[in-house]
Amino acid sequence: MKKLINTPSESVRESLEGFAQAHPDRIKYVADPCYLVRADAPVQGKVALVSGGGSGHEPLHAGFLGPGMLDAACPGPTFTSPGPEQPQAAAKAVDAGAGVLFIVKNYSGDVMNFEMAAEMHDSESATVLVNDDVAVEDSSFTSGRRGVAGTVGVEKIVGAAAEAGQDLASLKSLGERVNAQSGSMGVALTSCTMPETGKPTFDLPADEMEIGIGIHGEPGRRREKLAGADEIARTLLEAVIEDLKPAGGQRVLLLVNGMGATPLMELNLMHAAALRALEPHGLDVARSLVGNYVTSLDMAGCSLTLTLLDDEMIRFWDAPVNTPALRWGC
Amino acid sequence: MKKLINTPSESVRESLEGFAQAHPDRIKYVADPCYLVRADAPVQGKVALVSGGGSGHEPLHAGFLGPGMLDAACPGPTFTSPGPEQPQAAAKAVDAGAGVLFIVKNYSGDVMNFEMAAEMHDSESATVLVNDDVAVEDSSFTSGRRGVAGTVGVEKIVGAAAEAGQDLASLKSLGERVNAQSGSMGVALTSCTMPETGKPTFDLPADEMEIGIGIHGEPGRRREKLAGADEIARTLLEAVIEDLKPAGGQRVLLLVNGMGATPLMELNLMHAAALRALEPHGLDVARSLVGNYVTSLDMAGCSLTLTLLDDEMIRFWDAPVNTPALRWGC
Repeated sequence: MKKLINTPSESVRESLEGFAQAHPDRIKYVADPCYLVRADAPVQGKVALVSGGGSGHEPLHAGFLGPGMLDAACPGPTFTSPGPEQPQAAAKAVDAGAGVLFIVKNYSGDVMNFEMAAEMHDSESATVLVNDDVAVEDSSFTSGRRGVAGTVGVEKIVGAAAEAGQDLASLKSLGERVNAQSGSMGVALTSCTMPETGKPTFDLPADEMEIGIGIHGEPGRRREKLAGADEIARTLLEAVIEDLKPAGGQRVLLLVNGMGATPLMELNLMHAAALRALEPHGLDVARSLVGNYVTSLDMAGCSLTLTLLDDEMIRFWDAPVNTPALRWGC
Repeated sequence: MKKLINTPSESVRESLEGFAQAHPDRIKYVADPCYLVRADAPVQGKVALVSGGGSGHEPLHAGFLGPGMLDAACPGPTFTSPGPEQPQAAAKAVDAGAGVLFIVKNYSGDVMNFEMAAEMHDSESATVLVNDDVAVEDSSFTSGRRGVAGTVGVEKIVGAAAEAGQDLASLKSLGERVNAQSGSMGVALTSCTMPETGKPTFDLPADEMEIGIGIHGEPGRRREKLAGADEIARTLLEAVIEDLKPAGGQRVLLLVNGMGATPLMELNLMHAAALRALEPHGLDVARSLVGNYVTSLDMAGCSLTLTLLDDEMIRFWDAPVNTPALRWGC
């Protein structure tokens, strides 16, 4: 294992400390129970958004803390759900009286622990479950579909709506709509390696890729010989389009998301490949985002996400956001 | 070679196209001779900043195009200088009458070709040479020290000063001051692989790292057994401090820069390690930046940069910047 770490079991904590130290004016880090909040929380007059999940997917979720996106993030150990006491404490810290919306990726541990946190929260709360991965039904850590990079769109759009003063029921409904209109599929060129185990999560021969990979290295749909970017883009996007069944001319957000070890040069190239792959489908790519947003430690590869957009979603996507990992308009 | 590409020799072009397509409102891409400019160029009333160099270091330089930073970027082939016709055409496209400042990393090909472009440019121009890498004197592609991640600070600070209306001579002087007060050193955990060759640039055993690596995989100072993040941070920063010789209490900018395949989790951890390593030196880490800014294709590793700050430099560092890769305050 070649990683920039000290003691493997301390990597998550040390990384969170370094992250908070890099953003002292915008992030507050609480060590035990572990959660991070935007520095101006609790923010009066808005519903508080709380997310979280296993570490190893940075910048998700703590990188999305700030005006226009999340109020609190609860990082678990690497690829492991946070305990229920984390979202419970985080929710208490950020709830300014308008209630709390939990945004939870669909993994069994996350679902269970955020549900417990919601039950223990002593004022109004609701939950949006994200399950945008079209690759497989059920998986190592999941009943039903996995939540992956579509989470970025849900957190951005619902975050802007919360900032605009929408109430809890409206935000839950909006979040579920964004999720239902989002589909993702990923490809791995290499495995990832958890600091705590020091060994690749799975074996992938030098000339093969895994189509439909999960963000923890869970199995995808199939192994194939390594293909070119254009063919990969077609394979991933055809699966997403088959799932979402967009009408011709439909406006979409295209997210080209790196898995952690794939450089921007390749992600930009994949963006061009994705646009080519979308051409025959007659969609209107109204917005694009290219970069490392929902990673899988040091996995090489990417995922492609389409979110079908309407006027309200575009307005909230474009709205100002001021977080460590996503920043525009402010 | 496992990369998200099509034909290796077309990778740079396809990547630039995908980059420009991802930022249609802010970037204009000219294919031949190849350069990219901020969409509102030429901007009246300011000196135009033109940079460039070999590709494979994304987001450098095109990712820094926009208000508060660069006006034009000239990408060469992978790890290869752009031809003189590229900065010449770029300079002509962005010069609004106040002159052009070329910002050039100190590699022989870049220096020669930007010099030719400056000679051919038919109005006033000046050049700032960046050579912040303290690791080695002379190297594969360089006489003297190499220009590496310190370039980000030069382009950001001089970019803000240009936006504020400083004249060409002042900007050259400011850029040279930022460069002189910047020092960087990098470490590679793995080699990088150029799409065009398909083979690792150098061999690095599974338990070793290269201290003082260049951003093209040029040899560093020495090979060592892989060490922990704290020890790596101390090694790199002590070399930088020995070079810069800062006074106690000196304010510094700390840049933790990923080489392309190192995930943010590790870079954040390195930021914490760097802060610990700096403690005994009594510096005031006034600003930090953590992320992938000057990469080396798919190399795993990082570099640490210190820039000694004064009031003017802090003001220009903090000034609004609105580019694909660096954005704040606007």
